[in-house]
Amino acid sequence: MSKSELSSIVETSSDTAQLISTDDASTSNCAQLNNLSTDQNEDDEIQGSHGVRRRQPVQKIEPGSLNILSAKYESLDYDTCENHLLLDEERKRGYTFVVWKDIARWFIVLLIGVITALIAFTIDICIEEFSNIKYKQLKKSVDKYILLDKLYIPYLLWVLTNISIVFIGSMLVAYVEPVAAGSGIPQVKCYLNGVKVPRVVRIKTLFVKSVGVITAVVGGLAGGKEGPMIHSGAVVAAGISQGKSTTFNKDFKVFEYFREDHEKRDFVSGGAAAGVAAAFGAPIGGVLFSLEEGTSFWNQALTWRTFFGTVVATFTLNFALSAYHGHPGDLNYSGLLNLGKMEPFSFQFYELPVFILFGVIGGLLGALWNHINYKLAIFRIRYISSPWLRVVEACLVAAVTATCGFLMMFLLNDCRPLGEDPTKVPLQLFCADGEYNALAAIWFQTPEASVRSFLHDPLGSYKPVSLLVFVLSYFLLSTWTFGVAVSSGLFIPNLLTGAAWGRLLAIVIQYMLPSSNINPAKYALVGAAAQLGGVVRMTISLTVIIIETTGQISNALPVIITLVVAKWTGDFFNEGIYDIHIQLAGVPILPWEPPPLTHNIYASEVMSHPVFTLRTVENVGHIVEILKLVSYNGFPVVDPPLIDEAEVPTYKRLRGMILRSQLIVLIQNKIYNENANTTWSNLNVDMNMFRKEYPRYPSIDELDILDWEKTCTIDLRPFMNPSPYTLPHRASLPRLFRLFRALGLRHLPIVNDVNEVVGMVTRKDIARYRVWRHHCHMGMEELLLSSEI
Amino acid sequence: MSKSELSSIVETSSDTAQLISTDDASTSNCAQLNNLSTDQNEDDEIQGSHGVRRRQPVQKIEPGSLNILSAKYESLDYDTCENHLLLDEERKRGYTFVVWKDIARWFIVLLIGVITALIAFTIDICIEEFSNIKYKQLKKSVDKYILLDKLYIPYLLWVLTNISIVFIGSMLVAYVEPVAAGSGIPQVKCYLNGVKVPRVVRIKTLFVKSVGVITAVVGGLAGGKEGPMIHSGAVVAAGISQGKSTTFNKDFKVFEYFREDHEKRDFVSGGAAAGVAAAFGAPIGGVLFSLEEGTSFWNQALTWRTFFGTVVATFTLNFALSAYHGHPGDLNYSGLLNLGKMEPFSFQFYELPVFILFGVIGGLLGALWNHINYKLAIFRIRYISSPWLRVVEACLVAAVTATCGFLMMFLLNDCRPLGEDPTKVPLQLFCADGEYNALAAIWFQTPEASVRSFLHDPLGSYKPVSLLVFVLSYFLLSTWTFGVAVSSGLFIPNLLTGAAWGRLLAIVIQYMLPSSNINPAKYALVGAAAQLGGVVRMTISLTVIIIETTGQISNALPVIITLVVAKWTGDFFNEGIYDIHIQLAGVPILPWEPPPLTHNIYASEVMSHPVFTLRTVENVGHIVEILKLVSYNGFPVVDPPLIDEAEVPTYKRLRGMILRSQLIVLIQNKIYNENANTTWSNLNVDMNMFRKEYPRYPSIDELDILDWEKTCTIDLRPFMNPSPYTLPHRASLPRLFRLFRALGLRHLPIVNDVNEVVGMVTRKDIARYRVWRHHCHMGMEELLLSSEI
Repeated sequence: MSKSELSSIVETSSDTAQLISTDDASTSNCAQLNNLSTDQNEDDEIQGSHGVRRRQPVQKIEPGSLNILSAKYESLDYDTCENHLLLDEERKRGYTFVVWKDIARWFIVLLIGVITALIAFTIDICIEEFSNIKYKQLKKSVDKYILLDKLYIPYLLWVLTNISIVFIGSMLVAYVEPVAAGSGIPQVKCYLNGVKVPRVVRIKTLFVKSVGVITAVVGGLAGGKEGPMIHSGAVVAAGISQGKSTTFNKDFKVFEYFREDHEKRDFVSGGAAAGVAAAFGAPIGGVLFSLEEGTSFWNQALTWRTFFGTVVATFTLNFALSAYHGHPGDLNYSGLLNLGKMEPFSFQFYELPVFILFGVIGGLLGALWNHINYKLAIFRIRYISSPWLRVVEACLVAAVTATCGFLMMFLLNDCRPLGEDPTKVPLQLFCADGEYNALAAIWFQTPEASVRSFLHDPLGSYKPVSLLVFVLSYFLLSTWTFGVAVSSGLFIPNLLTGAAWGRLLAIVIQYMLPSSNINPAKYALVGAAAQLGGVVRMTISLTVIIIETTGQISNALPVIITLVVAKWTGDFFNEGIYDIHIQLAGVPILPWEPPPLTHNIYASEVMSHPVFTLRTVENVGHIVEILKLVSYNGFPVVDPPLIDEAEVPTYKRLRGMILRSQLIVLIQNKIYNENANTTWSNLNVDMNMFRKEYPRYPSIDELDILDWEKTCTIDLRPFMNPSPYTLPHRASLPRLFRLFRALGLRHLPIVNDVNEVVGMVTRKDIARYRVWRHHCHMGMEELLLSSEI
Repeated sequence: MSKSELSSIVETSSDTAQLISTDDASTSNCAQLNNLSTDQNEDDEIQGSHGVRRRQPVQKIEPGSLNILSAKYESLDYDTCENHLLLDEERKRGYTFVVWKDIARWFIVLLIGVITALIAFTIDICIEEFSNIKYKQLKKSVDKYILLDKLYIPYLLWVLTNISIVFIGSMLVAYVEPVAAGSGIPQVKCYLNGVKVPRVVRIKTLFVKSVGVITAVVGGLAGGKEGPMIHSGAVVAAGISQGKSTTFNKDFKVFEYFREDHEKRDFVSGGAAAGVAAAFGAPIGGVLFSLEEGTSFWNQALTWRTFFGTVVATFTLNFALSAYHGHPGDLNYSGLLNLGKMEPFSFQFYELPVFILFGVIGGLLGALWNHINYKLAIFRIRYISSPWLRVVEACLVAAVTATCGFLMMFLLNDCRPLGEDPTKVPLQLFCADGEYNALAAIWFQTPEASVRSFLHDPLGSYKPVSLLVFVLSYFLLSTWTFGVAVSSGLFIPNLLTGAAWGRLLAIVIQYMLPSSNINPAKYALVGAAAQLGGVVRMTISLTVIIIETTGQISNALPVIITLVVAKWTGDFFNEGIYDIHIQLAGVPILPWEPPPLTHNIYASEVMSHPVFTLRTVENVGHIVEILKLVSYNGFPVVDPPLIDEAEVPTYKRLRGMILRSQLIVLIQNKIYNENANTTWSNLNVDMNMFRKEYPRYPSIDELDILDWEKTCTIDLRPFMNPSPYTLPHRASLPRLFRLFRALGLRHLPIVNDVNEVVGMVTRKDIARYRVWRHHCHMGMEELLLSSEI
């Protein structure tokens, strides 16, 4: 079959392929077909070579819509290809190898835990040391120029310091590795869900992320280091478990048998958990984070290993930090808790309404925070698209943040007596001698230290008006900061905002009920939980994290109640912030459940067709043509047509599935039938041949294929997956969905009553059907597929 | 086709059905076929009617083998039958119904939480009050008769009290509801894994369990109340969510749409979690217990609801208990923690080896405990089978326990000064005035209170020799007690044993390192965790439970390390106690992963065949015959044979699957084509017709089928599942396993290349292949299937 013939098939059949709901039918058929459900090969190749070539928009898509799926994301593949090579390997290696592989897994998890913790420790210490230097210098400057009445000098110094520090991180993020922007949690979440986010687990990303987060926090932005640490854990896991690095182009030739999507995903989920453990000192919270965010099919052995990894990470971090703080080996030293050790607080049954009220406020504020951030994100997508504009925005945020801080310190003269000062650099400013400015104390330290201050300072430490102004400005600053081109998370800023309004409410309650004895710590903690819960909408993992970072289980019940109410309230208005950003990026993430009431949508409507099939023994020229023509990643292998020998593709009986990557490796190594006795009898044709190139296989255009090769044939049967999961064309969408979600599939051939392939379903075909909920209403919508975003 | 012809098919084809590894080929073919992979209909029907009739042993099976699967367990079915009725219902009800159903779910979970907590509260209070009365009376008797030198009188009183109390509970368990024996956790675990354990979630079971556990603990046995409370939660959940009770034969006509295996399973997992929360006051631990033990496919919405349920249960229990203890509404009252509020203890890096040592000891002792218990269980299966013998054994245990306690008090004169006495009934015995007997203090209270004593008493409270004797005797008593015919768990006895040897080791360490300042509480807690971890081999849920019941997160790290090491050490020798008991019962539980190195086992070897199929429009007489002849539960529906009209069954193209229960309901309601305009035009043929009978459908023998009916036909197409999951005959065992496990299937038709049914796979076919590990070796074994156990 010639290329032009193949193309004509594409042309003629694309009119039957009206699978997506588009109002604009005037676009080219070919482009439309390519936009439908291509499951593209390689993440990196997307901007170059064969991928983009034929992509055109289906219709004018407004950037920043939530109703679009991007065509650029690939799916991970958790299904095992049970071909002859695998059987050979199993036979050869036996049970000893199974045991050995298991031991290797534990060893890798140990390494992941240690390295993740050391990275987190380094970030921690850099932030602490650099911040200390910065604020000490600023204090000196303030103390000096206040006497000269030239406060604009320290102000300018502050602004310039912040801008120049943030500039470094922002340049790295904008020009070196844009995927390192933000907290990284949405990206990790997508990865664990089964979507390959380009470059998200590279060493380069790790480097940019680590430097970026240090500059962001030292630069005084309203951002935290926790999200980036979680992302770092994921990168470390992916790197170590694969025994090679793309960034350094180095293959250590170890752990080759873990080079498949399934194993890698398991390690990345362990790495993310270790990241949480290192970020918060929360081993149990880490496991729960992975469970809550990542799993479709969970496994007890995996829980075990993940738990081991988080324990190792916590232990390593605690040991390093205790040594740094001068208590080497004292793992109980309370300075190891991020939020400081809380005292247990008593609570009564009648306080239940108060906690519910806090939850409602947190939910409302969280939903508002998300809404503002969403609008800003759309604005950014539309108008701040070039890297230099993004850098400028980051510097602007840095300047405004410093200005806010300065104005607050300058205008709100909140003086407190020295002595129980919660800061390392108490600033006198306009206060009387022996006093310090309470707001300067909050601003002249890292946000994390400020959360500790709000949680632990006694009731009268701050004026209500200071708190009110602080809440307002920090709320807006933090929602503006999350999304600019720096690496920073949202945990700490939201905890800080929440702790501030919790403390404010404590003062209000104390004022209304003067006889009561209000514990500000309790309300600050509950407020912090409510605010963060309202923004991220996690439940059980967040509860455990908060409990573990404050070292108090007896405060669990109020925190839990508040979080549950905050989630309910927030969900009434919009989704969690991570989900919003995932939707904005158009990632085809699969929810937990199939959309309801879709049993009347059939596989025949969902699938894409026609299908490009290969014969069990196929001509190399034909394979190359098909690979160049379409960008699909999986091809059904069929029996050669028995009756109809015409050159038009008829439906044929399914015999197996072969992947683009496998075909590429076969051609690359010239495993042709005609070569069987010459070239490749010297080759060791086994699983390692395929593993070597994982995960970035060359594109078909990069291969040198000589003319004589095109006349050769390849027997695909030893390499294909002989029994892929299939579904009949009359299967319903929920059935497709469950199979896909539970087994982590990438391709699903749809067959008719006599087992002939009639279509293919990929992740995007299913992710297009999404349920929406708004207030008490719900319904279903079909998303558009676009290659633009 | 007549019955005899059908039977002849069974005879002729059974020689091809040599699926199980049996050495004895001389047994009847027919019996063999029936033993292969029947997925029997109804749990309760098993002893009567059609089930047992044809069952004979394949070979002489030694009772108590671990290598046998019992044929009596059915599988739950989580796959949705997407027939026309479901589509009709979806269309009619729309999104409002989806929202409403969701609200109903939350409401049910709220009810489950409250009721589970109230039951737990009642059990708690009964145990506390009755124990108090018992020990106060005994103390009076001791104090009186010691002066008269007639100590045998209080001894006899003690023994007789114990025996008579235990007798009540044991009679209930042995004669009324044997499934209520033990802790109930293995049964709940099986249920969550997808195995229908007969009568395990009945109200009658709940009643026997509740009364049984009170008698067991008040009767002084070495048992705890926690397992039974978890089981209670599961029963409550099953009862409430179904809106009907079989025990009382009452249908409340509510929540009918939750009458399916999938929904019921979700509620039961929530109920078990609420049970953990109520038993330990551990809301997070409860969720984790369900996650760790039960889930195959976990779901965020379900996690949420489960979490809500556990919080409600904890809250309700705390409120009730705080009121009972005279601190109404004070939810922070530390008496609410089962194990008492621990103080945070400091630990150093160099203590790491000590914790590892504790873990190793715990693992060794746990493995030994499991081994002894396993041997005892086999002895029981072989020789203590009749109910009255079981009652006698229970009474014997009660007598021996009392005797042990008495001898220890009598012989080890461990006197301590009064004042800081940890018991409500300090006993002077032979001690000097102003002193009490420390061992009597441990024995004259509930085991839970004794754990508290060991955890909280100061270092010098017990003599080393007392502790040693106590550990030895309680270790043996508890392993003997777990498995006798009473309802009691093993958490508390193992915590008690562990706390005792932990405390003993603390004394040893103090002796060896006199300069150190040993905190006995720390070592007692770590010892308790190690012992329990060595026996049950849970990880993350157990960690959280221990943390939550002691109210101290800062002790988490040593507990975690110890638990991990204990599990590793224990797993080197045998499996966790629950798994041992599940294997002894021959439950076809599916592990988390398919056995390794089984890609070369194909579906065609695993499946059972020949398959009994039905045509799309089938004769009632034929259906009835098939239902009476075989005990399969699922029947493939096939196209009528197109070419071959002979009366022999040929392989036919798969069109759908229909369940025995659906056929029964169709016949029961006489939904015949011939009746379409007369009888059933008045009937409302919808999903509720099928739900009404769930989960106990009548057997085919119970139906009155008149002769004229047998000539009628039923169109199965609107009722069958039109697109069941299938796999080709060349699919491998791991592939079968994953599909089965991830989607919770009950039946899986195996098809050939042209989609004709060639076999059926059920849970038992897969569960037969099991991996064994012993020390560092592993391998695969095939279990026998038997209807004997």
